[in-house]
Amino acid sequence: MGKIGKQTWRFEKPIYINSTGTTVGPLESQGPLKDSFDKWFDKLHCDEKNWEAAERKLLQEAITICLNKANQTTKNIDIFLAGDLLNQTVTSNFIAREVQIPFLGLFGACSTSMESLALGAQLIDSGYAQTALCGVSSHNGATERQFRYPTEYGGPTVKTKTFTVTGAGVALLSQKTSHVIVKEAIIGKVIDWGIGDPNNMGTAMAPAAADTIYTFFQDTDYNPQDFDMIVTGDLSSVGSPILKQLLLEKKLDISQNHHDCGLMIYRPNQPVSAGGSGCACSAVVTYGHLVKQLTKGTIKRVLVVATGALLNPTVIMQKETIPCIAHGVVLEAAGGQNS
Amino acid sequence: MGKIGKQTWRFEKPIYINSTGTTVGPLESQGPLKDSFDKWFDKLHCDEKNWEAAERKLLQEAITICLNKANQTTKNIDIFLAGDLLNQTVTSNFIAREVQIPFLGLFGACSTSMESLALGAQLIDSGYAQTALCGVSSHNGATERQFRYPTEYGGPTVKTKTFTVTGAGVALLSQKTSHVIVKEAIIGKVIDWGIGDPNNMGTAMAPAAADTIYTFFQDTDYNPQDFDMIVTGDLSSVGSPILKQLLLEKKLDISQNHHDCGLMIYRPNQPVSAGGSGCACSAVVTYGHLVKQLTKGTIKRVLVVATGALLNPTVIMQKETIPCIAHGVVLEAAGGQNS
Repeated sequence: MGKIGKQTWRFEKPIYINSTGTTVGPLESQGPLKDSFDKWFDKLHCDEKNWEAAERKLLQEAITICLNKANQTTKNIDIFLAGDLLNQTVTSNFIAREVQIPFLGLFGACSTSMESLALGAQLIDSGYAQTALCGVSSHNGATERQFRYPTEYGGPTVKTKTFTVTGAGVALLSQKTSHVIVKEAIIGKVIDWGIGDPNNMGTAMAPAAADTIYTFFQDTDYNPQDFDMIVTGDLSSVGSPILKQLLLEKKLDISQNHHDCGLMIYRPNQPVSAGGSGCACSAVVTYGHLVKQLTKGTIKRVLVVATGALLNPTVIMQKETIPCIAHGVVLEAAGGQNS
Repeated sequence: MGKIGKQTWRFEKPIYINSTGTTVGPLESQGPLKDSFDKWFDKLHCDEKNWEAAERKLLQEAITICLNKANQTTKNIDIFLAGDLLNQTVTSNFIAREVQIPFLGLFGACSTSMESLALGAQLIDSGYAQTALCGVSSHNGATERQFRYPTEYGGPTVKTKTFTVTGAGVALLSQKTSHVIVKEAIIGKVIDWGIGDPNNMGTAMAPAAADTIYTFFQDTDYNPQDFDMIVTGDLSSVGSPILKQLLLEKKLDISQNHHDCGLMIYRPNQPVSAGGSGCACSAVVTYGHLVKQLTKGTIKRVLVVATGALLNPTVIMQKETIPCIAHGVVLEAAGGQNS
């Protein structure tokens, strides 16, 4: 039985992250995690003609880097699991065309990073794949134009708004021994507390993150102190305190080890309002920074909870709200899997 | 090992379709398969204020019908797998909020019907779920407005264009014995032969369907004559002959038992140009008509290949083409599983 409790998956075999690939745009490469990323582009266009093509380049390059590190080629990969924020997950679809690997398209907004990692590990654990490539991407220019206003429009911003990370993060999974193990995953439920403001997604997503984290600790024997870090995807400076308060009200204190990828990726003085967001936010921080720390052994175990605001501009204009979801994955340093 | 050959999954345990729910709109309820659907709406608005809300009602009602038939409630369902054609798969997200089941959001355009069924069966087979609810939806008014022109615009149509089916189809899976078994699935690759015309998706998708069907017969010991029907999702009158010709060129003859859901669901004299399309097209024909035939035993084994045109209007304006994918599932009458 892979399922434990209500929503948690525990992988019976050791599933390893064999390699990762991360690419980022100009603002992310000026942030504190610069050196943990594999490749950075100085220009938002990434030498392409439009934002959408730039996002495709970010994902394609991340895949190439990931496979090269593991000395693998696309022919040896059994399944490609991917998604992104653009309508019809168009970035993933076009890259799936290039890699020619059987493809499962996913959409969970910014939670797609951990949705793809969870499903990839599950497919390997159950013998449905030997190798899985899991990846997501986002692009500030393409996303802002689609969901809010084109950046060229120069519209005023508000302090609660997050800034979509430009980048792509990819992980290659198999049972081949490596430094980082995927131990468990938790599949979230959709939670909606009635927030309808696309410029305040941290508040909208915090209850979904709280529900997933609370359920995870109910489903398992873990305590928050068993984790060096409990990392959310993109709750930002607005959603992070709400998450901690919601969990404290349920007598779960994660304040000592909670971090948010959207706050980790930029310096406080960078012009990103409340912090980073987007599929790539949790993906590049996890596959860049966290995997490096786990590999070095400076941290032993981390719970990554990717948060997704399932925002649709059309129904927002119809006065609907923003349903949200959060999926989590437990990563361990390979030496620590028996602890 | 669940994986056989390059892309095919064979389920080790018997996974049953315990019940299905299908809802359709006015034009579909005037078609030849009317009596195989559970509920039909006379008006495209389905008594809601807008197309998007109407699509949500179609999916919600299909779920309610499906669960009622099996005497089940949402509390007993381990996982909900769904997707649709609207941006951010907004219909599925909102319904996931209502049902409060752990949710995996999927996107494969019209192929999402069989993507969700395949993954649901896989999760049960491997012990990651005991019950899975798999569903998709589409709505003619919402989809035409998003991808082409609002129907109110009255734009001229062309003969190669397909007509999005209004409806929703849902299946409940478990290991509890029933009349229809999910035997195998095949996960497709993205294929793009350079078609960039959103009004000719049958031609765009035929090569993806051909690739999936050809690979399926390579991966398994089946021959086309082992199937009472080989059913594609929405290739229409334009794509169907292309599919058969492409397979004939590879010495695979499916002409005797090929059918297309987009041609089955409407009468030839209905105003749908080349035939039906949309996520609901393959879903309501499969979960309505085909499941009923398998239950009666009038057919014993069917291969359903749902075809998806991964069309994105923005990149079409950037002169890109339409990548396509097709996922297949083998359904058997429960008496025939040892044949």
